[in-house]
Parts: sequence; structure tokens; C-alpha cells
Amino acid sequence: MELFFYWFDHLGVAVFAISGTLLAFRKNMDGFGVIVLASVTAIGGGTLRDLILDLPVFWAYDPTYLYTIIVAALGTIVWLRFRDYIHQKTLLTADAFGLAFFTVMGAQKAHMAEFPAIICVVMGTMTACFGGMLRDVLARDIPMVLKGELYATTCLVGASVYVLIADFSPLLALLVGGVVTLLMRLGAIRWQWHLPVFQEHGESR
Amino acid sequence: MELFFYWFDHLGVAVFAISGTLLAFRKNMDGFGVIVLASVTAIGGGTLRDLILDLPVFWAYDPTYLYTIIVAALGTIVWLRFRDYIHQKTLLTADAFGLAFFTVMGAQKAHMAEFPAIICVVMGTMTACFGGMLRDVLARDIPMVLKGELYATTCLVGASVYVLIADFSPLLALLVGGVVTLLMRLGAIRWQWHLPVFQEHGESR
Amino acid sequence: MELFFYWFDHLGVAVFAISGTLLAFRKNMDGFGVIVLASVTAIGGGTLRDLILDLPVFWAYDPTYLYTIIVAALGTIVWLRFRDYIHQKTLLTADAFGLAFFTVMGAQKAHMAEFPAIICVVMGTMTACFGGMLRDVLARDIPMVLKGELYATTCLVGASVYVLIADFSPLLALLVGGVVTLLMRLGAIRWQWHLPVFQEHGESR
Repeated sequence: MELFFYWFDHLGVAVFAISGTLLAFRKNMDGFGVIVLASVTAIGGGTLRDLILDLPVFWAYDPTYLYTIIVAALGTIVWLRFRDYIHQKTLLTADAFGLAFFTVMGAQKAHMAEFPAIICVVMGTMTACFGGMLRDVLARDIPMVLKGELYATTCLVGASVYVLIADFSPLLALLVGGVVTLLMRLGAIRWQWHLPVFQEHGESR
Repeated sequence: MELFFYWFDHLGVAVFAISGTLLAFRKNMDGFGVIVLASVTAIGGGTLRDLILDLPVFWAYDPTYLYTIIVAALGTIVWLRFRDYIHQKTLLTADAFGLAFFTVMGAQKAHMAEFPAIICVVMGTMTACFGGMLRDVLARDIPMVLKGELYATTCLVGASVYVLIADFSPLLALLVGGVVTLLMRLGAIRWQWHLPVFQEHGESR
Repeated sequence: MELFFYWFDHLGVAVFAISGTLLAFRKNMDGFGVIVLASVTAIGGGTLRDLILDLPVFWAYDPTYLYTIIVAALGTIVWLRFRDYIHQKTLLTADAFGLAFFTVMGAQKAHMAEFPAIICVVMGTMTACFGGMLRDVLARDIPMVLKGELYATTCLVGASVYVLIADFSPLLALLVGGVVTLLMRLGAIRWQWHLPVFQEHGESR
């Protein structure tokens, strides 16, 4: 069970490392810039979560996470050698999987440390969104989280589902919460669901 | 007394949440992007302060701060429904009030934990400026703190006033320091006070 | 010995404070914006390192670092009064020295706290690169670390050299690691060495 969570966590790290590598590729970065962007995306959210919850930062005490990032980034680079370009959709899909993994793992870590429910929901959302936000700020893209595409909202819903089920079965909560997040986000990408956007009707600045 | 400080702190959080919401509105963000920007602005500075001083992060152990943010952001959204546009000045004024509250609360938290005077001044300035800096970076504005408008300087002065008075009366220090910060900043906005700006005279890069 | 490390650390802080001041000058910031940018550059990386390793944040308990920043920034400002413009190369060179100091000091701090070798390498790289990354994000430049110029790669090599030698002699490791980092980076600037850059061959987004 513990082991299952552990591998689930590594899977999330790998997927976000891939998403960082894909964006670095689009931005024509060099080999090491790729590793930096992959790492920031993969461990940025979890690092902030652990700092705020005053837990040991997960990767500082278990370097295998860093090896996961390196393997995922190098694998992606090799795979990209055989492609002329990458679809924006590939990047969005990798990001959606990372989002689903990290939302439930973030909520779970707070839940296991016995924080109140709302903090678990916030931590799930933050773990999932912060790494990608750093990735976009560094690569000078508009952060996905701030665009009107049900991004952070899916994390909020997925983490809430996790919290509701977690007292009965953490494993079931992980699966249901993760699947809900993933489907909502993929649906938002596919059918361009979005929340109402605020708009100024009058003069612009 | 303790309770007074507690409410003062919530007031600062609410005001900065409003300022984040107003900027999100200007940038046409969706409903949840607004909450994210409001939260980052409201708790970014205090989070960094608590991490650096190795204190428990204030909102992780007292979720009422999160409810304050949600209420302030939703209230602002409702209010904005009846407005065609917002003046840049409204945003600047909300920001100035947040700045005043957070400068003295940040200095006070470091002072109560018995850090040296210069650290209290730095923490006041950082608590006040960091959230707004994150807000501007995320929304891709030039951070106010880096523009030549007596921004961080007012925090520095306000926090210094707090530190000078705090040994006699924390409450008086809070009021005087806060009022000094607020008036200096409002004056800087109104009459465009600014520090000398460095300028290159020769070739530009 | 301890004292030697201590001064070495201050030297790194001073050099990065100078590099932050130079960039602020290029960007026409005001007097306090300069201090903010100098501070962020000088202590950003070390702050993140200490937070992640769960060590006391170095400058919060020893304010002399802040005085070092102020003196370095003011000294640079005075020096700039007598110059019409600054060469981009001056900025790059100051940055290279800061990079060399911080790489070995970051690796050393992790090594002394007995973290595994890969974490020491990561911490060296992070200490050196993070402050400059924040500087560039705030000043809205493309972060040097993400451009194809052997930036983070030199830190990785320098920190690895440190770790390989540190078990025999921390002092020797500091000197050799620092010199290797400095020479690699200066060479990269002078002869424009770079790693292969990834490029999309087909359509752009």
C-alpha cells in the first residue's frame, strides 16, 4: 500500500518532467535548460507543499525522485529526436496527467499529516498547479492556471473528492479523485469548457 | 489585545485579496483564476515570512484566513458586476491599504519572535511586498515594487517606525507605523513622489 | 577555517548583489528597487537551499549579510555615477564570479549536513542559479539559466568536482570546484560555448 503510493508519486513526477521537457523543446532551450525546466515542473509544487506543512521536503531525503526526472527528461528528448514537431495537445495531455496525480497525492499528504479538510484541498490544488505555474513563468508563457480553462478548478474538485472519500478508503479516494481530475481536465481541453471570464465593458487601461 | 492583532491581520489579508481580484478583473481571468490571484497576493508575503523565520505558516494552522480570502474575493466580484470598469486608482488604493497592514504585521511577528531590529524591518517590507510582487509577475505586469514610486521604501520607513516604538507599546507601534506607511504611499500615488531613478546616459543595450 | 568559509560566503553575496545592482541600473530602477533586486539576487538561492534542507535561513540569524548587500549595492551605485554606461560583459562577469562562489558554498553546506552526493550537487546548482533566475524574472529578462550558454551546466560540473574532493579536503574542494566553475563560465561567455539547442524543425505554435 505504502509502496503503491510511492510509485504513484514517482509516476506524477515523471509525467510533469515530461511536460516540462516538451515546453523546453518548444522554447528551443539547451540540454541543461531542459533538465532545469523538467525539475521545476516536477518537484516545484511538492516542495512548496512540504515547506508549508513543515514536513521534510520529499526529494531532499530520497534522491530517487531526481533520477526519475532525469530518466523521464532524457527519454522524452530521445523520443523527440524522431519527431519534427510536437502538437500543443501532446503538451496539454501530459500536463493533465501530472495534474491528476499531483492533486490527489498533495491532498493525501496533508490528510495523512491530519490537517483540516480545507487545507488538504488547498494543498492538493497547490501541489498540482504550482510546478506548472513556475514552468510557464520561467518559459515566459501565460500560466495555464490563470487562463479560463477549468485548470485549478479541476484540482479543487478532484482534491475535494479525495477528501470526501479518504476517511473510508485512502486507496479508493486516490483512484476516484485522480480519475475525476483527469477526465474533467481532458474534457476541458477537448470541448473547451471554461468558467465565465470577467470582462471590463468600458475603457481599457 | 491578541484578538485585536488577529483581526488586524485578517483585515490585511482581505484588502490584499481585493487588490488581487481587481487585477484579475483587469486581466479578464476566469472565476478560479481570480481566487488564485487573490490568494497569492493575500498570503504570499506572510507565507515567505513564516518559512524564513521558521514559524508555523499562519494559514496552514488557521483556515479562517482562507475563508476571509474567499469572502473578500466574492464580495469584490459581486461589487464589480455593477461597475463598467475600474479605475487604476482603485487598485492602487486597495494595494496601499494592504501594504500598510502587512508592513506592521510582518515587523510585529518578527519582533515578537525576538529577531534583531534589522530583520524585523526586512520582514515587514517582505511581508508587504512579496505577495503583490507575485501577483504582478503572474499577471505579467511590471512589479509595482520595482517601479520608481516609493513602494518598498514606504514599507522600509513604516517598519522602522514600528520597530522604534514597539518596545514601549506594540499597539501604538502598530497604529503609528501603519498610518505612516499608508500616508506615504497614498501621497506617492497622489503627487507621484519618487526616488531618483538611475539612468544610463549612453548607449542602450 | 570556519572563518575562511564565512568570508568566502560574504564575498559571494557581495558579488551577486553587484550583479543585481548592475541589472537594476540597466532597467532604470529607483534607489530602493536596486536594493530589492540586489538582495533577491544575493540571498534568493541560499534562502531556498536552507528552506529545503531544513536548516536555519542563514541571513535571518546573521544580519551582517544584509549589511554586506547594502554596502555592495551602494558602492556599485557610486561607481556607476562615474560611468556613462555599463557593458553587458561587466554584468556577465560579475554574475560568473557569484556563480562560482555560490556553487561551491551551496554544495558545501549540504555536504556538511551529510546529505547524499547528488543532493549536494543539486544544492550547489540551485544556490548558484536561483537568485539570478529570480533577478531575471523580476526584471523581465529571459533567465540566463535557460539560455543555451553553459550556465547551469557549469554549476553542475563545479558542484560535482566539489563533492568528489570534499571528503579529502573541504578547503581544496572549495578552491578547485570554484575555479573550475569560474573558468568554464568565463570561457562560455568569451567563446560562446554552448550545449546543443533543441529545435523544432516543423511548424511553430
